[in-house]
Amino acid sequence: MAPWGERLAGVRGVLLDISGVLYDSGAGGGTAIAGSVEAVARLKGSRLKVRFCTNESQKSRAELVGQLRRLGFDISEGEVTAPAPAACQILKERGLRPYLLIHDGVRSEFDQIDTSNPNCVVIADAGESFSYQNMNNAFQVLMELENPVLISLGKGRYYKETSGLMLDVGPYMKALEYACGIKAEVVGKPSPEFFKSALQAIGVEAHQAQ
Amino acid sequence: MAPWGERLAGVRGVLLDISGVLYDSGAGGGTAIAGSVEAVARLKGSRLKVRFCTNESQKSRAELVGQLRRLGFDISEGEVTAPAPAACQILKERGLRPYLLIHDGVRSEFDQIDTSNPNCVVIADAGESFSYQNMNNAFQVLMELENPVLISLGKGRYYKETSGLMLDVGPYMKALEYACGIKAEVVGKPSPEFFKSALQAIGVEAHQAQ
Repeated sequence: MAPWGERLAGVRGVLLDISGVLYDSGAGGGTAIAGSVEAVARLKGSRLKVRFCTNESQKSRAELVGQLRRLGFDISEGEVTAPAPAACQILKERGLRPYLLIHDGVRSEFDQIDTSNPNCVVIADAGESFSYQNMNNAFQVLMELENPVLISLGKGRYYKETSGLMLDVGPYMKALEYACGIKAEVVGKPSPEFFKSALQAIGVEAHQAQ
Repeated sequence: MAPWGERLAGVRGVLLDISGVLYDSGAGGGTAIAGSVEAVARLKGSRLKVRFCTNESQKSRAELVGQLRRLGFDISEGEVTAPAPAACQILKERGLRPYLLIHDGVRSEFDQIDTSNPNCVVIADAGESFSYQNMNNAFQVLMELENPVLISLGKGRYYKETSGLMLDVGPYMKALEYACGIKAEVVGKPSPEFFKSALQAIGVEAHQAQ
């Protein structure tokens, strides 16, 4: 492997994932991954611009950042690119009023969004809130629309918790796609627009990023 | 349209659907569709062989037949081809022990099936039992298998109840397919094997059936 100096030639900014990279989520706020607190501190002390880019959709940025700070990370809410605020921007731009099939932990991100008389569905990693009743509500909203819009915060298949593998939003997104004969719009990784918005926030071009 | 005599030339047997054809399901046992009780009686009084072929997977054949008899239909359990008994035959033939993600109403069809230490998943129209917990259990069973087998009783997108449109098994089948990166085996319509088994039961070839 080439030495760091060489590998970072031309690199002006770094996007850092959070879950599974900086910390492992789990009961009691999770645990920092060995060396990651120091790595973040070193990056932020360097000439490189740093942005945190996560698909975390079960909690608000405020809650996520609070948790990471308690684990020792130097991170603030304004440094985080996450799907929920990105979705809110899209909703506002397009005049969309969502039925929210989301986890209660992330609901505060949508406080400023009009959810009356829904004309789209936003689906995220809702965990236990993926009940038949809630899925059916989302389905019925979509079926009543002339142009059904389904926005999915990420499309992950599953993730690992201390208790075992857990279904992520992707399978439920696929369920609604099949039920309604539609294609979801994915906000979050791996959508190129999502990475671009994270890079824009630190004024770095894609070829200058790591 | 050609007269009946002409259209039925060469026809020796008839497969009849049940839900939406003979009766509309709903609260209080549903209602017979106008003329259907008489139509069944006339068919059974004719030279034609008759078999009932349904994707009904929320109730056992015994319950379904009881309901239809109360509505006036001449029908017995042995005349019904349904996905659950067809799945049981497959499970026995292949030594499969299912995790059952099904409606309680159809559970009795699986009374003779060993469900200990599951080595496959059977999914059916489970209604409210499609909780996150149950879906995750099914997912975890599949992910622990070297050759994951997912058997789906039908693959319908949705059906209509008096209270509105309801998600059927298909969307949940798709969810598990995506989560595990597998393809389900569909038992029930529109699987050709299912129609064949219904025809075999009345000793009629496909080209002789209507």
